Amino acid sequence: MPAPLVTLTTDFGEKDSYVAEMKGVLLSRGPAGLRIVDLTHEIAPQDVREAALFLRAAVPRFPEGTIHLVVVDPGVGSARRPIIARIHGQTLVGPDNGVFGHLFDRHREKVWAIDPGKVSGERPSRTFHGRDVFAPAAARLARGEKPEELGTALQEYEHLVFPLVEMEGQILHGEVLHIDRFGNVITNVPLETLRGFLGNGALLERVGIEIGGRRLRGVGTHYESVAPGELLAVISSGDLLEVAVREGSAAEALGVHRGDRVRVIRPEG
Amino acid sequence: MPAPLVTLTTDFGEKDSYVAEMKGVLLSRGPAGLRIVDLTHEIAPQDVREAALFLRAAVPRFPEGTIHLVVVDPGVGSARRPIIARIHGQTLVGPDNGVFGHLFDRHREKVWAIDPGKVSGERPSRTFHGRDVFAPAAARLARGEKPEELGTALQEYEHLVFPLVEMEGQILHGEVLHIDRFGNVITNVPLETLRGFLGNGALLERVGIEIGGRRLRGVGTHYESVAPGELLAVISSGDLLEVAVREGSAAEALGVHRGDRVRVIRPEG
Amino acid sequence: MPAPLVTLTTDFGEKDSYVAEMKGVLLSRGPAGLRIVDLTHEIAPQDVREAALFLRAAVPRFPEGTIHLVVVDPGVGSARRPIIARIHGQTLVGPDNGVFGHLFDRHREKVWAIDPGKVSGERPSRTFHGRDVFAPAAARLARGEKPEELGTALQEYEHLVFPLVEMEGQILHGEVLHIDRFGNVITNVPLETLRGFLGNGALLERVGIEIGGRRLRGVGTHYESVAPGELLAVISSGDLLEVAVREGSAAEALGVHRGDRVRVIRPEG
Repeated sequence: MPAPLVTLTTDFGEKDSYVAEMKGVLLSRGPAGLRIVDLTHEIAPQDVREAALFLRAAVPRFPEGTIHLVVVDPGVGSARRPIIARIHGQTLVGPDNGVFGHLFDRHREKVWAIDPGKVSGERPSRTFHGRDVFAPAAARLARGEKPEELGTALQEYEHLVFPLVEMEGQILHGEVLHIDRFGNVITNVPLETLRGFLGNGALLERVGIEIGGRRLRGVGTHYESVAPGELLAVISSGDLLEVAVREGSAAEALGVHRGDRVRVIRPEG
Repeated sequence: MPAPLVTLTTDFGEKDSYVAEMKGVLLSRGPAGLRIVDLTHEIAPQDVREAALFLRAAVPRFPEGTIHLVVVDPGVGSARRPIIARIHGQTLVGPDNGVFGHLFDRHREKVWAIDPGKVSGERPSRTFHGRDVFAPAAARLARGEKPEELGTALQEYEHLVFPLVEMEGQILHGEVLHIDRFGNVITNVPLETLRGFLGNGALLERVGIEIGGRRLRGVGTHYESVAPGELLAVISSGDLLEVAVREGSAAEALGVHRGDRVRVIRPEG
Repeated sequence: MPAPLVTLTTDFGEKDSYVAEMKGVLLSRGPAGLRIVDLTHEIAPQDVREAALFLRAAVPRFPEGTIHLVVVDPGVGSARRPIIARIHGQTLVGPDNGVFGHLFDRHREKVWAIDPGKVSGERPSRTFHGRDVFAPAAARLARGEKPEELGTALQEYEHLVFPLVEMEGQILHGEVLHIDRFGNVITNVPLETLRGFLGNGALLERVGIEIGGRRLRGVGTHYESVAPGELLAVISSGDLLEVAVREGSAAEALGVHRGDRVRVIRPEG
């Protein structure tokens, strides 16, 4: 059996020693040969929604048995609980603040509140639960301990609603969910919803998309279906409606930000 | 035998979930115990030339058997082919857009075009071949499959010419290839070319170097051969002519950018 | 026995190929299965003091047997020596410029000067000892070679004094040591010193703290003890006096920088 795998997702950046301290704790208290895989440390500071979207895309790609340690935790030291969750054979460790909200699904998951006294002999600092509570818990899980040994089962915990698309006659109202590094504008409109709304798949080529004061026509299939510098709508790698500029930044071209509105208009016929 | 090693080089940054999704695919489909090593995710977006120079310096340092997964891919979804290449016992996986161009050498390499249908059961997204084509191919190679099983041999593929130095009488014309994090200015003039041009190694101490409107005299041996804040020419760790400022930024001091000209003047005698 | 562990701490960033070249050398020359763990590559360029504080927090968290490879080296190529140090069962490899200064403790450590001729068959470049001296030395240590085989014992080497707090009657004078990613302001005043100064632990709740022209009262226990946007003093995860803004940046709110002064005033009674 290969050594257990712990991934790390934080908003700590790499300038400070916080991530390094957590890695030290994992390697000191975890099983021999533990493998650590960095997912990101560049979540915007204390941006729980950004982290939740990140995890929604990333976690399902990992193998069963993976432990995901997540620290994006504006409420450190307060009453929000540290939790462990199991879903689809993977284990999540982090704060109960909605960061796992998009992975929770109709109670297919099991969730436990961590008892800090059970994961670490030391008294945790009030400001760094990543090192003093979450990493020790992940290390113990990696050694084969059960969530039941580290805390108590929870029935109530934070969900996070994926921002909903609204339909109004021939118009579908959505919003900008994320701007990626390339300036691609990812919306909350799933391909599945778009198909249901249009009824007829062939209409995808003629659908109207209004965003940032511009109107696009049709959803293309890849970036190179337009000339460099031109706008196009595509389906993102996460199966969401995306607006892009070939070899450029759609967010800049459109002047849009997270939360801005997008409208999809059903073509006639 | 130790677990196979897959390195990652991308222009994805770490803010988005793209790198994490690729890591999940590698770990889900690769062999037990697979080791992932990040080389960089900070290649400038879609900058194939920067990536090619990066790989020219990095790849030869790795052991035989390493698999290098590279995704810097402005043409994703278009006609450019996904490829596998073998050279000096290492394996490269990425787009056929010149990113491996500086590693290819007089057809000592063998190259295959990947057949996406052979690497993954799913239909690849049009916008994220890193996750849907390249990572699954690397995972299969890491499991011991042969390139021949994943695609067909290619005779024609993208090379990339290392920007050539021109000689004109007593003058050698070069250009700025790269500015590093410290502001060191790395040119396309190899030490070997410089030595051939000068004929006499001793002349290295008296050679003239013109760049950014300034003239330097002689190639030094290390940064501390001048006072802090002063300009000097040295030979870079990649054996190229470099202009540096001790404990400062030569790029700022000279106001130069990639592509700007440098002239080397042979001293008399 | 699990494969040896080598951590990396540099000021190289990830844009250039330097870190990747070092990883290649470690994997080529180290033992089969070597595990590399990135601590940070985002130390400010050539900032030895920042690196020393980073290592002070991170290194003690790692297990015995870990090898820490550190390259923050403004004097590369000059007379400063490459060293190996052993302390508390861990091994440090890097330049003798004070970067390990906060880890050295009353000669509990043993230190050796590396002989570059013994670690690598090749002649090292003058500008990249990270790749040509330090990484080869770390690789050999990871294979089980002894420091004695790679250099000679040293009695004199660089220490670094942790910036001292001064007491003057009812006032304790300190300074800003570090600003973290969240804008938290970490000072050089240890909790232990603060307790000794106050004599009575209960006074912690009433102590006065002057910084950036503002006066705070009392040291809180966690960020959520004040309203969002408000300033508070807390004890940092490294047991130092810290000034923070809940869900905001104290460094911005106060306009302070590293080296700025902080005063702690003993309350009466």
